[in-house]
Amino acid sequence: MEPIYNFSAGPASLPKAVMQQAQKEFLDWNGLGTSVMEISHRSKPFLKVAADAEQDLRDLLSIPDNYKVLFCQGGARAQFAAIPMNLLGEATTADYIDGGYWAASAVDEAQKYCQPNVIKAMTEIDGKTAIIPASDWPISEQAAYVHFCPNETIDGIEINDLPNTDKPIVADMSSTILSREIDVSKYGVIYAGAQKNIGPAGLCIVIVRDDLLDLACNELPSILNYKVLFEKESMFNTPPTYAWYLSGLVFKWLKANGGVAAMEKVNREKAALLYQCIDESDFYRNNVHANNRSLMNVPFQLAKPELDGLFLEQAEARGLQALKGHRAVGGMRASIYNAMPLEGVQALVDFMKEFEAENK
Amino acid sequence: MEPIYNFSAGPASLPKAVMQQAQKEFLDWNGLGTSVMEISHRSKPFLKVAADAEQDLRDLLSIPDNYKVLFCQGGARAQFAAIPMNLLGEATTADYIDGGYWAASAVDEAQKYCQPNVIKAMTEIDGKTAIIPASDWPISEQAAYVHFCPNETIDGIEINDLPNTDKPIVADMSSTILSREIDVSKYGVIYAGAQKNIGPAGLCIVIVRDDLLDLACNELPSILNYKVLFEKESMFNTPPTYAWYLSGLVFKWLKANGGVAAMEKVNREKAALLYQCIDESDFYRNNVHANNRSLMNVPFQLAKPELDGLFLEQAEARGLQALKGHRAVGGMRASIYNAMPLEGVQALVDFMKEFEAENK
Repeated sequence: MEPIYNFSAGPASLPKAVMQQAQKEFLDWNGLGTSVMEISHRSKPFLKVAADAEQDLRDLLSIPDNYKVLFCQGGARAQFAAIPMNLLGEATTADYIDGGYWAASAVDEAQKYCQPNVIKAMTEIDGKTAIIPASDWPISEQAAYVHFCPNETIDGIEINDLPNTDKPIVADMSSTILSREIDVSKYGVIYAGAQKNIGPAGLCIVIVRDDLLDLACNELPSILNYKVLFEKESMFNTPPTYAWYLSGLVFKWLKANGGVAAMEKVNREKAALLYQCIDESDFYRNNVHANNRSLMNVPFQLAKPELDGLFLEQAEARGLQALKGHRAVGGMRASIYNAMPLEGVQALVDFMKEFEAENK
Repeated sequence: MEPIYNFSAGPASLPKAVMQQAQKEFLDWNGLGTSVMEISHRSKPFLKVAADAEQDLRDLLSIPDNYKVLFCQGGARAQFAAIPMNLLGEATTADYIDGGYWAASAVDEAQKYCQPNVIKAMTEIDGKTAIIPASDWPISEQAAYVHFCPNETIDGIEINDLPNTDKPIVADMSSTILSREIDVSKYGVIYAGAQKNIGPAGLCIVIVRDDLLDLACNELPSILNYKVLFEKESMFNTPPTYAWYLSGLVFKWLKANGGVAAMEKVNREKAALLYQCIDESDFYRNNVHANNRSLMNVPFQLAKPELDGLFLEQAEARGLQALKGHRAVGGMRASIYNAMPLEGVQALVDFMKEFEAENK
């Protein structure tokens, strides 16, 4: 049987070695004769899982000591409410850079709590979708913070520069975290739903600078309150222990495989290989400008959309899974997070070339 | 090796057969060559998992058609905020029956959103902790709803009657759901964190009567909004798919094993066996009145608390795990949810008798 390569945008595939280890110890973890998901979150063995995961993440991202790491329930959409409720303080507005579907979704939720100042960042260059340079974003004076989403999973757009501001920068890194090196100290809050580069769905990691913990509004549910979560060591509520454990295994796998720098190198190779295949052909196209193409999510369309079904069917038969594009965009999308090996992208490119030759 | 019996209060043990199936298909689910946790929540195979889980739960609890079933992220504590934010409407108060630790925790959170009318339900009868009969609870006129927690996991207290009211009754059934037959039509909202009788931590099931979907306050985060969750089929956010899948397996296991009526029968046998062992001895004691003893969580103390450590050590050596009582109560606690077989309780009782004989 050919190897399976799963290009799902999320919940996404996890590193094979992690999944194999998790399966092996599924019924008998740590010699306990029971699963890690069946023990108390306050038991010593689980507390070590929790602490190790935090420390490994701190090591991987070089998180400064004045940043708290929170393991929250839910995904990024919970944070779309948590961000304004935690950070607005007395302010009544915040800047939201709109660079795609998810950035816009964050605005929708923020409107319940403030009047977001929406900064349209999308433009067109040479007929391709592009992002206006950050130096041209009209950042407001009154904003409590500046929110942006550096990688748009659906649109396949990446923002490579940072807002030019001394306000706290808040970044939805659901599909970028751990895929490349970042300087955490430049951010006020980084948050990421786990189900792309971290672990299974149902967990969200929040990295928050400690001077931002005292601004929460009274109506903020405690389970979304950064200060409460910090003080209770992310165990105010029974946490999603199995997702936390699996994420910890992913962090250890990342460290054993060269960390974020090594991932970034392979991720750039993977993306270059796939975009090159698209660009060399008239049969496939990607409509994002080279400056803003996502390293993680590569949407592409067939010049003959009537072949979409056949493409997906034949890809599936070759073990190339979940390539169907998001319903908002159509066509195809290959999500190539950390867990996708270079061989997977090579297999996809080989198939794409064969399919083109047969159907041109 | 002796079998392991895990008495954890939650995250709690799951049915062995479920865990074995999950392990077997961990890397290759449904013939896909990938894990169920690595596929899109919107893929056909996962949508079937989701729909089956809902239907099986509806069958198990005979949930009427005018009730919605929501698969939410987080545990009961998220609902402590969601309940008032979803249900208060124009009202400024709700009745909260205080029968233990969790009922009181719900009050703490509700105070952010209203002035809860706290009805102290705990009393003493013959020197034992007991619950005042529901007919004597001073239900208020202005309350939007009446909240109670029929089983207190920490205190080991059970409330067996329902508030006498025509207001919506809201019940935190985290540790009671599926353990016995209930009449859903008597409730406005039933909610339950999964990690006791349903599945792994990180999921909360909400069963809500459909006339209560239009009362949400403006500040309610969308991920806690019952109407949004219903309209989006519990997929407003990427749901915790693996927890949903495992819960679905538990529901199928319950159906295959006689459903809730069969569980209730065994649960009553298990509890009777354990309380009998405690009551026949001066060496162990449980301080809850017989009327209000929990079927699910049995706290007990040793007459010689200096033996607590030895008791736990020897129990552990016999494969009887996680018997240490909650730090708020001390002593021991045996949580005997659906997944705990009668043999597990028998093994515990055998050990308790031996330990007593050796240390009396």
